[in-house]
Amino acid sequence: MKNVKFIALAALGIFVAATFTGCGSSSNDKSVKVIELPVPERPAGQTDVVGLALPPMDTVRVGFIGLGMRGPGAVERFTHLDGVKIVALCDIRPDRVEYSTKIVTDAGLPAPVGYSGDSTVWKQLCERDDIDLVYVCTDWKNHVPMAVYAMEHGKNVAIEVPATTSLDECWQMVNTAEKTRKHCMMLENCCYDFFEMATLNMAQHGLLGEIVHAEGAYIHDLRFLNFDETPGGYYDMWRLKHNTVHNGNPYPTHGLGPVAQALNINRGDKFDYIVSMSSDQYGMTEYAKNKKGADSPEAKTDYALGDMNVTMIRTDNGKTIMIQHDVTSPRPYDRKHALSGTKGFVQKYPVEGIALEPNAHSFLKKEQHDSIMALYAHPIVKEVGEKAKQVGGHGGMDFIMDYRLIYCLRNGLPLDMNVYDAAAWSAIAPLSEISVENNSAPVKVPDFTRGAWKKENGFKHAMAK
Amino acid sequence: MKNVKFIALAALGIFVAATFTGCGSSSNDKSVKVIELPVPERPAGQTDVVGLALPPMDTVRVGFIGLGMRGPGAVERFTHLDGVKIVALCDIRPDRVEYSTKIVTDAGLPAPVGYSGDSTVWKQLCERDDIDLVYVCTDWKNHVPMAVYAMEHGKNVAIEVPATTSLDECWQMVNTAEKTRKHCMMLENCCYDFFEMATLNMAQHGLLGEIVHAEGAYIHDLRFLNFDETPGGYYDMWRLKHNTVHNGNPYPTHGLGPVAQALNINRGDKFDYIVSMSSDQYGMTEYAKNKKGADSPEAKTDYALGDMNVTMIRTDNGKTIMIQHDVTSPRPYDRKHALSGTKGFVQKYPVEGIALEPNAHSFLKKEQHDSIMALYAHPIVKEVGEKAKQVGGHGGMDFIMDYRLIYCLRNGLPLDMNVYDAAAWSAIAPLSEISVENNSAPVKVPDFTRGAWKKENGFKHAMAK
Repeated sequence: MKNVKFIALAALGIFVAATFTGCGSSSNDKSVKVIELPVPERPAGQTDVVGLALPPMDTVRVGFIGLGMRGPGAVERFTHLDGVKIVALCDIRPDRVEYSTKIVTDAGLPAPVGYSGDSTVWKQLCERDDIDLVYVCTDWKNHVPMAVYAMEHGKNVAIEVPATTSLDECWQMVNTAEKTRKHCMMLENCCYDFFEMATLNMAQHGLLGEIVHAEGAYIHDLRFLNFDETPGGYYDMWRLKHNTVHNGNPYPTHGLGPVAQALNINRGDKFDYIVSMSSDQYGMTEYAKNKKGADSPEAKTDYALGDMNVTMIRTDNGKTIMIQHDVTSPRPYDRKHALSGTKGFVQKYPVEGIALEPNAHSFLKKEQHDSIMALYAHPIVKEVGEKAKQVGGHGGMDFIMDYRLIYCLRNGLPLDMNVYDAAAWSAIAPLSEISVENNSAPVKVPDFTRGAWKKENGFKHAMAK
Repeated sequence: MKNVKFIALAALGIFVAATFTGCGSSSNDKSVKVIELPVPERPAGQTDVVGLALPPMDTVRVGFIGLGMRGPGAVERFTHLDGVKIVALCDIRPDRVEYSTKIVTDAGLPAPVGYSGDSTVWKQLCERDDIDLVYVCTDWKNHVPMAVYAMEHGKNVAIEVPATTSLDECWQMVNTAEKTRKHCMMLENCCYDFFEMATLNMAQHGLLGEIVHAEGAYIHDLRFLNFDETPGGYYDMWRLKHNTVHNGNPYPTHGLGPVAQALNINRGDKFDYIVSMSSDQYGMTEYAKNKKGADSPEAKTDYALGDMNVTMIRTDNGKTIMIQHDVTSPRPYDRKHALSGTKGFVQKYPVEGIALEPNAHSFLKKEQHDSIMALYAHPIVKEVGEKAKQVGGHGGMDFIMDYRLIYCLRNGLPLDMNVYDAAAWSAIAPLSEISVENNSAPVKVPDFTRGAWKKENGFKHAMAK
């Protein structure tokens, strides 16, 4: 069951800063330093895009790429938004374009232009001159190539999670956003769930005191989907293939995004370094044997991804974040979402709980819980929560996310999540892989803001006057 | 709030095996190795004590040392056990000896001999020739000196958690147990809680499949006790003093013991290496300011212990264990106790949950939960659980622990937890401190069995025929 895979540090361009000064040294430096990755210099003439705001758009004209799993839902939600126009739809498979086109026309809206048939046709969508926003719902490895191409062609982009799969892609995305001065937002929908937004609101009102530790997770048994060869599964089984070659936490952002906002990451604090540990892989092989037979290719494949990955992140301000990933074990769904502060504690799974001083040794009883949830319901949820529940999409959070994206674009405001968030949150995937392959050694998180993380003091949602 | 403290690796006798072969190396060795501590050779003429069994004792004659916080409860529980004689009681404070003596005489038993008055009087207890078992409930730093002295004087010992506070003490304890061929058991009561025992039973019956990942914790807001200067607090505020100079996880065994048994640690698998990360310290200072005043010495003390510590352990068989420690944050009590396998999942906090294939995406409903808990109630709990609830002590688990200790001694059986368990579980404290002080670098867990962890295949409770 052991899965030892060598990552050539040199090939990754890793600057190994680690030195040992332990034996007999009288230095008071830390004895074991972290693996440090290169932070490329900002290209000449570029500045950061912290707080980037573009001129207000009366109508946001949108093109969608990737209409397999997440795409059709996004198209459907956009039919419920004011001030948008669905201009174009693109998928490699013509039937997926037809399917989403019908969603648009069934809503009484004009049929968008369709693109399909080969793996480069999405470029034509990006090259149109009547699109403001390209919305990308493809497999992971196409996110950055599409985002970069779209920005290079003057478009703002929204890309599904994780935004990137490598550090090189993180820098490509950041550099392109800085060069083109376009928005590049990762579609981290969990930042807009009702409990996450209420607890963010509590945190921002000081109810939890100083938040010292936070937890998030993506624990979701995806074995059925990962091994599904039919069109109902991931296109060309791309996710299983990814898991065959990558260890670490390939999908960190659902748990990480909401707690990163509560901890003001990239806005007064930032990720400092991580350590990551994976179990061996047991569950995929056992599942493949049971479902496909002991002699099936799936049962004989050497999957790289350990069943459970735990990644710890330390921030510059001395806070800690624990992020877990397990898409293989038979367990109830769990994103954790825990915030532990000097005055209180909240957690979402397995049951929502809020504990506050001076009675923090017990979670609030249902009546008090409901009352504080109502009191601290996020203003954005108060504004659009009811409609979001009607439209649907993971209980409404997907719609709130789209609503906010369009609201900010139409009002000429900075987006809730900027390109540095997309880079830092997604970078945990390749960084955790490096740590796991080096006996869980500490790995420095590159500062994708290149110093600009101190420009803003605390996370907030921009609101029109 | 930063707490940078230098641990002189050389002073700890640490053999730094770590080397970096990363840059340009074509070796397929892992690039970053772990901090490796010396494993002293077994002294000549000694052999391991795996499976150690001593001649059956008709009556187990006991002496107790340490009657402040945990001691009186232990004395009281022993008045309910058959086949024991409470011979002697010892505490530095005479009133604590009087208090526990009254417990014994109130139970209609003869008054034990009392020892008190100075910090060395416990030696006289250990030197008696009418005692079979010395039961130690003192502060942490006296555990090993007392255990070693007692074993050297022909006594078996049971010591409170953690058994040790340093690696040097781990080896002293192990070497003395091997030399003297005496039992040395750490009193890890959480191994005997009803849910932990039932889920161990489920695991041993294969209900959870292969257990791949486990979690434990000690999350217990002890601020009031730690800052209590009265006789009701820890004697001479020893625990706050410990937290002033030690970071990492000083108290790992309550969460670790039960999951280590489920994972057969030291019986076919063992801890391989750990990484550990602490948050900065925020909570103790804030508490001290509020309770003692901003100018109080307590508010101005530089506490070493971060509010939250997360330690990850990887085992030789590729399993992972996450252990947390937080005695400072206002939160509900939480020991986690999660076992994640290829066929099912259990967790104890914040609410007991059991999820089993093929319906593992939800926890069992109450009726099914209760029914499976009854079906898999541990045989030992069936035997003594009702009496344990009546006697009390953390809901009964303390009594079951004492019952098993005496049962095994009276039947001439190996104890449930041997000296290697005491060493390996407790060693997480100093090892986590080393990792934290070295930017969470991986640290090898010494093999305290020196190769004997493969002698037994799976953990089991010894039972008389």
